[in-house]
Amino acid sequence: MTDKKINKILLAYSGGLDTSVAIKWLQDKYDAEIITYTADLGQQQDWKAVEQKALATGASKAYIDDIRAEFINEYVFPALKVNALYQEKYPLATALARPLIAKRMVEIAKKEGVDALAHGCTGKGNDQVRFEVSFKALAPELAIIAPLRDWEFVSRDAEIEYAAANDIPVKATKDSPYSIDQNLWGISIECGILEDPWAEPPADAYQWTKAVDETPAAAKYITIDFEKGVPVALDGKQLDSVTMVNKLNQFGSDYGVGRIDMLEDRLVGIKSREIYEAPAAEILIKAHKALEDLTLDRETKNYKAAMAAKYAEMTYYGLWFSPLRNALDAFIDQSQQTVTGSIKVKLYKGSCTLAGRKSAHSLYNHGLATYDESDNFDHKSAPGFINLWALPVQVANQQQREE
Amino acid sequence: MTDKKINKILLAYSGGLDTSVAIKWLQDKYDAEIITYTADLGQQQDWKAVEQKALATGASKAYIDDIRAEFINEYVFPALKVNALYQEKYPLATALARPLIAKRMVEIAKKEGVDALAHGCTGKGNDQVRFEVSFKALAPELAIIAPLRDWEFVSRDAEIEYAAANDIPVKATKDSPYSIDQNLWGISIECGILEDPWAEPPADAYQWTKAVDETPAAAKYITIDFEKGVPVALDGKQLDSVTMVNKLNQFGSDYGVGRIDMLEDRLVGIKSREIYEAPAAEILIKAHKALEDLTLDRETKNYKAAMAAKYAEMTYYGLWFSPLRNALDAFIDQSQQTVTGSIKVKLYKGSCTLAGRKSAHSLYNHGLATYDESDNFDHKSAPGFINLWALPVQVANQQQREE
Amino acid sequence: MTDKKINKILLAYSGGLDTSVAIKWLQDKYDAEIITYTADLGQQQDWKAVEQKALATGASKAYIDDIRAEFINEYVFPALKVNALYQEKYPLATALARPLIAKRMVEIAKKEGVDALAHGCTGKGNDQVRFEVSFKALAPELAIIAPLRDWEFVSRDAEIEYAAANDIPVKATKDSPYSIDQNLWGISIECGILEDPWAEPPADAYQWTKAVDETPAAAKYITIDFEKGVPVALDGKQLDSVTMVNKLNQFGSDYGVGRIDMLEDRLVGIKSREIYEAPAAEILIKAHKALEDLTLDRETKNYKAAMAAKYAEMTYYGLWFSPLRNALDAFIDQSQQTVTGSIKVKLYKGSCTLAGRKSAHSLYNHGLATYDESDNFDHKSAPGFINLWALPVQVANQQQREE
Amino acid sequence: MTDKKINKILLAYSGGLDTSVAIKWLQDKYDAEIITYTADLGQQQDWKAVEQKALATGASKAYIDDIRAEFINEYVFPALKVNALYQEKYPLATALARPLIAKRMVEIAKKEGVDALAHGCTGKGNDQVRFEVSFKALAPELAIIAPLRDWEFVSRDAEIEYAAANDIPVKATKDSPYSIDQNLWGISIECGILEDPWAEPPADAYQWTKAVDETPAAAKYITIDFEKGVPVALDGKQLDSVTMVNKLNQFGSDYGVGRIDMLEDRLVGIKSREIYEAPAAEILIKAHKALEDLTLDRETKNYKAAMAAKYAEMTYYGLWFSPLRNALDAFIDQSQQTVTGSIKVKLYKGSCTLAGRKSAHSLYNHGLATYDESDNFDHKSAPGFINLWALPVQVANQQQREE
Repeated sequence: MTDKKINKILLAYSGGLDTSVAIKWLQDKYDAEIITYTADLGQQQDWKAVEQKALATGASKAYIDDIRAEFINEYVFPALKVNALYQEKYPLATALARPLIAKRMVEIAKKEGVDALAHGCTGKGNDQVRFEVSFKALAPELAIIAPLRDWEFVSRDAEIEYAAANDIPVKATKDSPYSIDQNLWGISIECGILEDPWAEPPADAYQWTKAVDETPAAAKYITIDFEKGVPVALDGKQLDSVTMVNKLNQFGSDYGVGRIDMLEDRLVGIKSREIYEAPAAEILIKAHKALEDLTLDRETKNYKAAMAAKYAEMTYYGLWFSPLRNALDAFIDQSQQTVTGSIKVKLYKGSCTLAGRKSAHSLYNHGLATYDESDNFDHKSAPGFINLWALPVQVANQQQREE
Repeated sequence: MTDKKINKILLAYSGGLDTSVAIKWLQDKYDAEIITYTADLGQQQDWKAVEQKALATGASKAYIDDIRAEFINEYVFPALKVNALYQEKYPLATALARPLIAKRMVEIAKKEGVDALAHGCTGKGNDQVRFEVSFKALAPELAIIAPLRDWEFVSRDAEIEYAAANDIPVKATKDSPYSIDQNLWGISIECGILEDPWAEPPADAYQWTKAVDETPAAAKYITIDFEKGVPVALDGKQLDSVTMVNKLNQFGSDYGVGRIDMLEDRLVGIKSREIYEAPAAEILIKAHKALEDLTLDRETKNYKAAMAAKYAEMTYYGLWFSPLRNALDAFIDQSQQTVTGSIKVKLYKGSCTLAGRKSAHSLYNHGLATYDESDNFDHKSAPGFINLWALPVQVANQQQREE
Repeated sequence: MTDKKINKILLAYSGGLDTSVAIKWLQDKYDAEIITYTADLGQQQDWKAVEQKALATGASKAYIDDIRAEFINEYVFPALKVNALYQEKYPLATALARPLIAKRMVEIAKKEGVDALAHGCTGKGNDQVRFEVSFKALAPELAIIAPLRDWEFVSRDAEIEYAAANDIPVKATKDSPYSIDQNLWGISIECGILEDPWAEPPADAYQWTKAVDETPAAAKYITIDFEKGVPVALDGKQLDSVTMVNKLNQFGSDYGVGRIDMLEDRLVGIKSREIYEAPAAEILIKAHKALEDLTLDRETKNYKAAMAAKYAEMTYYGLWFSPLRNALDAFIDQSQQTVTGSIKVKLYKGSCTLAGRKSAHSLYNHGLATYDESDNFDHKSAPGFINLWALPVQVANQQQREE
Repeated sequence: MTDKKINKILLAYSGGLDTSVAIKWLQDKYDAEIITYTADLGQQQDWKAVEQKALATGASKAYIDDIRAEFINEYVFPALKVNALYQEKYPLATALARPLIAKRMVEIAKKEGVDALAHGCTGKGNDQVRFEVSFKALAPELAIIAPLRDWEFVSRDAEIEYAAANDIPVKATKDSPYSIDQNLWGISIECGILEDPWAEPPADAYQWTKAVDETPAAAKYITIDFEKGVPVALDGKQLDSVTMVNKLNQFGSDYGVGRIDMLEDRLVGIKSREIYEAPAAEILIKAHKALEDLTLDRETKNYKAAMAAKYAEMTYYGLWFSPLRNALDAFIDQSQQTVTGSIKVKLYKGSCTLAGRKSAHSLYNHGLATYDESDNFDHKSAPGFINLWALPVQVANQQQREE
């Protein structure tokens, strides 16, 4: 693989400095044609400008690919169904997007007869793993190039100098001190002062959500209807999945909901401090869990909760295209057959609070649960139950006392 | 056990109507001497009045037992060290108290030469199980009596009539529509309108915490120091454990922190809707987890997270006095050797937000994590890592394509 | 449910003394019509005689129901696909049969307009739970009667006397000292000397399998073909599932394969000593696991191994008809898509030994695995892999040394 | 680390061709002094000859280190206490030895003022990871060199030529077709015909154990006494741990016990076929589990069984010196407090069969378990138990039928 002349490279292109420099650098180093691939995952950029920049910098062709619906339906909602949170906090926005981008790049690579896939990740992050594992899973015959791991620039200044020398536009506006990645399911913010775990994130770190002080004086109640674990309507109105997530991001942001401050363990073995904003994810996962509390039996709920950690880990670790993820999805889809109903939540002053749950599939039985006169639980069963339930610890303690 | 004449009964006594009626009812039914046991777990009752009421109702002796320190040190903090939350939400205030009450009752029973232990739980709750499993584990030779499961009163009115006929004072004040249990680690509220899962808890359901609207205009920052997983100082000042929890309950309540609205699965097989307030628990568990994020390696953290569910389940299920809980505690204590450091949190408008973490045992390595010039992570390791990491899914996908 | 007059009872009938006495006892006690249900699960009894005995003893109708194929296809093979072994040893023959018997009884109960279901289990075993949980899951409106828990016979002699007085034939042959239950998937033997865990099972305890000394002098090799996790052919010859299991039981028994001596934990809280023989189960589970070793990727295999314990526990605990079991089956079926191939095993002197595995879906890659010249594994990837793999423990140990 | 001149290297030395060549190759390449380290783990080699060969080949000093007792006491028996088997089969002989060798090498490296540690592992095995992770955990300041990954020999012949040119003795005897590693806890055999998973291991693959045909005509019974999970006596005679394991290896080998034919998943992402012999391990793990069946309560036993898989995985993956392993050991040691008693096993014709278990800490209660007249289990508890046990699945099924 390594010795074959590389003639055509498909580069994951964000429109930023690094991947713009990469166009030129790859062209020079490999004497190859460069095609760029840019995924529209809801970042709300000027896609025309991104395309123009790629072409101006030397790309022979520039794909702008609207994959928002596929992203939400085939990647985000499966993760929602299992309530996937990496290390109990991170809803995996970037981690879920990478395998889809990789899959689309492989499809285009085959169409375009490309020899190599390139991405703009550094050597210490998770994303390089997610891209490359997906590439290897889907098209091991294609070479993989990671310019940012390979190139010789010793500093940011050297890179900017190279850009200037090659007529690559460097944004005039002052750079954000943060490194940012975003899509419909959330935004991640890192670097700068955030690298100090003792420092509270400054106000300017948050990109989407309002500070509590700036949120409306009155609470907002919303009702979300789910069908088989998937949100389908907001306040009684059916919405397509992309609109649903967009609207919840908007509502959540207005009310300061969805901020996450996390010190996480990367796959590559280091701890890093990340800030996330994920308003729709916070609202939907909370609502979905509440509906499961009502419609899943205890054993299924508990087993599924343990599975969520594994599912999140596999996604975070770049193992989306794996047999185990397929099998987990089969379990999850079966578990969601009755997860249909409505959840009411209250958005207020930075919090999303549960305000009601109902379902035609509810396993909450008022007659069994109530302490009023309609109680139909058989209280006489308790002593027998307790006798047998206690027996193993009774015997073990008895044995211990005798020793 | 059942045929022997019962001469002396030790009754868990709350001072409320049910257990007061139980004094008389047990006396009548068993022709036995009744001793009452009341645990001071920080409920802030008039203990003198409780004692007087027990004696006035017919008890020969009334124990009021301050077990707050033992409760926090030997039951609550071990659960905090593992971040135990039943079904990811409930910090187990009542569940943790029951085995300790049972243990104390057994100790007193032996001292007093009692034949039977009695409690005031109904036949459909978890507490009957927690009491009785603990009784059976610690003193299987003692009979167990549950008057509320056994007696003949067909309604609340019948019970009140019996009380009146026996000169048992029935509180003149209008009854709360809710059934409440509380101790230092939290309060639980159930019944009434709360039995409708679609109903948002009314303002009067909350007993401790302020509504967001009534919270202070300015945020409050507090710093908690932990030593080996246990909180030891607040804002730099060493505090005994009971004072620590009391203060955090106060701060949290003032800021509207610690409300939980939950539809949970009881051990006895039914779903029930519970409201909890647990300000200190929310603050401490959040802070403790944040410190673990900094000081535990990934594998220990992830393994321990799965263990938390088991630990919570065992506690909720009444299995505190069991060999497995002892073995889990050994694991947890070992894991906490380095969980020493400081956590800063911000209380504001109903939320407790992480504001900083630091530790002399920090595993966060700025040199490895940073993207600035001091980066000393070896980026050249990544390709080799990814090659081997990807290999199993690469082979599996290749095989699948060939089929 | 309890107060309604019971007019017609469907009784699970084995043809033995207990359930024969139960026919008469139920008739007397409930003044009801008795219909018997007997499942043919491959026990090789004289079914005509069983039917005659039921009718002679007072049953108005006697069902003999051949459910062998449904048992193997819908209960045994799903458990085989997950390699279900309770406490790592017991292949669950009886536990898998109970829910199917219950399901068939409910179907017949509805057809016959029966009011109550009855079974011949005692009050301390697992089977009462398995029957009754299944009855309650499938037809909670039917009453459940357990004569052996309810009746007044103080001893075996009293029961025999009652039988004699009611013209119920008591087997003339000397009773086995053991209590036995059997079906196609295995036989269980308990009681008598086996209740002493220090005693080795005497030769007469084993009902099916030959002692090693009596096995053939020459080894027997057999090859089993699987399709999607299910055995379909033996030595190249397609077999229906019942014949497959019968033949393997025969081969295994001849070679002394499939004996299990176990001290297990019952659901009702006690430990009991059980002897099992399960030749087909031992051979098939060993072969199936070996095929999975070849065709499943590591993560799927490891996750599935943990699932096996849960699946076995749920089956053993009587929770077959539960949402979780359905969801587990969905996972398992997905995982078995590539579990197709051939396994060769050797039966010899009491052992079943793996002798070869092959599959068109094999993930074993000779080029990657070999140390000969055809090696195509990239050895240069190792240092990078190790660097990142070691990083968390390196940092943790470094930190610990500095303290 | 990489740029510093390396002056002194400590090489893990087996006495075989590869590591002998490595002495010379390291000397030449690094112009450094070479010290060799050889661990005596019970392989029964001529240690004097190994030492002589190292010195003759150019080593300045040759350590022969008898670490058998530390190996068994601090590595093997902790793994025995948890019944660690990688992928349910492999008792981890080599995997347990590597971290100890690494630890000893680091100790000697510090004493000798060495700059680099070297080992003779290739780039595709597990052992390179185990050595290097341990080195990095214990002494990250030392360089690590893996000659077999780095050197230029294109074939075995080239290596032999180099040996000849440098007066390194190449064994005259015909090479085994297999690659072998052994210590007290087992032997592993790979390569040659074993790389074909369909091939049954030929007779000459097995190094220790007799074929069934060659085993004695009469069975051998042995009794092993354990104290807190550790074997301390054989047939009533106290033995030190090394003698215990040696004797059981001898007995097991004589009776053909302990052969394992496995297709396993390596950490580096490939499947490989391995043959193991581990007679003492098979006997001791079986006996230890049987004693736990008697002395551990159900929940502890089940939880510990899941932990065994994790413990084995961590050991196999080279993560011995990790905080999680320490915490797991704390759990395990606590769990073993009552695992004291005697197990009788029968060795016969290739099998090790359980023949009896007894313990002063037994949780088997004859009165509860028996079906004879001494039965003191409360059968009347069953209906209540079943009612509550069944409730969740009853409600779930009811709900599903109504839909």
